[in-house]
Amino acid sequence: MSYKTQKLNIKSNLKGNIFKFIDISSSFYSEFGEIYFSEIRYKEVKAWKKHLRFTTNLTVVCGKVRFILYGGRGEFHEEILDNGDNYKLLQISPGQFYGFQGMDSERNLIASMINHPHDDQESVVLEHKNFNFNWGDVDWT
Amino acid sequence: MSYKTQKLNIKSNLKGNIFKFIDISSSFYSEFGEIYFSEIRYKEVKAWKKHLRFTTNLTVVCGKVRFILYGGRGEFHEEILDNGDNYKLLQISPGQFYGFQGMDSERNLIASMINHPHDDQESVVLEHKNFNFNWGDVDWT
Repeated sequence: MSYKTQKLNIKSNLKGNIFKFIDISSSFYSEFGEIYFSEIRYKEVKAWKKHLRFTTNLTVVCGKVRFILYGGRGEFHEEILDNGDNYKLLQISPGQFYGFQGMDSERNLIASMINHPHDDQESVVLEHKNFNFNWGDVDWT
Repeated sequence: MSYKTQKLNIKSNLKGNIFKFIDISSSFYSEFGEIYFSEIRYKEVKAWKKHLRFTTNLTVVCGKVRFILYGGRGEFHEEILDNGDNYKLLQISPGQFYGFQGMDSERNLIASMINHPHDDQESVVLEHKNFNFNWGDVDWT
């Protein structure tokens, strides 16, 4: 598998918390290309995608998102991120196929930082059916 | 005033929209230091602050936030940001005093990118009362 995770820090504040994401001293940081935000609606799936050259550092800033990472030979790994107990950084390396699903009935939002600006030619997208994974098999409680 | 704004692009998608923020080709981009997220609860105020050396590029990714920028001589400017019609980038230069207030009864979240990693010694914080601004005078509809 070509991904890793790291627990992120939340600084509590009565008027509203501060959520640390990434700075240049982080071992997850290499270079800045772009930062953008992706919504994923409740139960909807965006899958499968892999980047050819980009490394993605992402976190979930609203709601809860389930990420599935393809490990080859029919093997899948799951990472669930939210902005509470599962507030963490997920780094996805080039070549790693992944997909994700919205798990909160309100708003789910991912913050993604990539090490180059967006380039449509740089990623490979496959339809759901290309991998034998059942996205419906999820505990929605 | 030492701030500027730019309308940001939202790419519509039935499964969830994509919100562009900033990339290295943007005229607002100079250098990457850190990105973090700040909550501001409904009607709560964080004010006043100015950075001595950092430039902040920020946007609102959840809810709606009212920013007040101090223009000197008792003058104040208001910028309201959300993730709909008012989805925009607000760039605040060093030396510019500002404060902000949560306007959505659900969650308000700001994404901030600064051109150096966080440094407690680098900002000046004043209490509300230092500037004669009435934060209560707001239309909550």
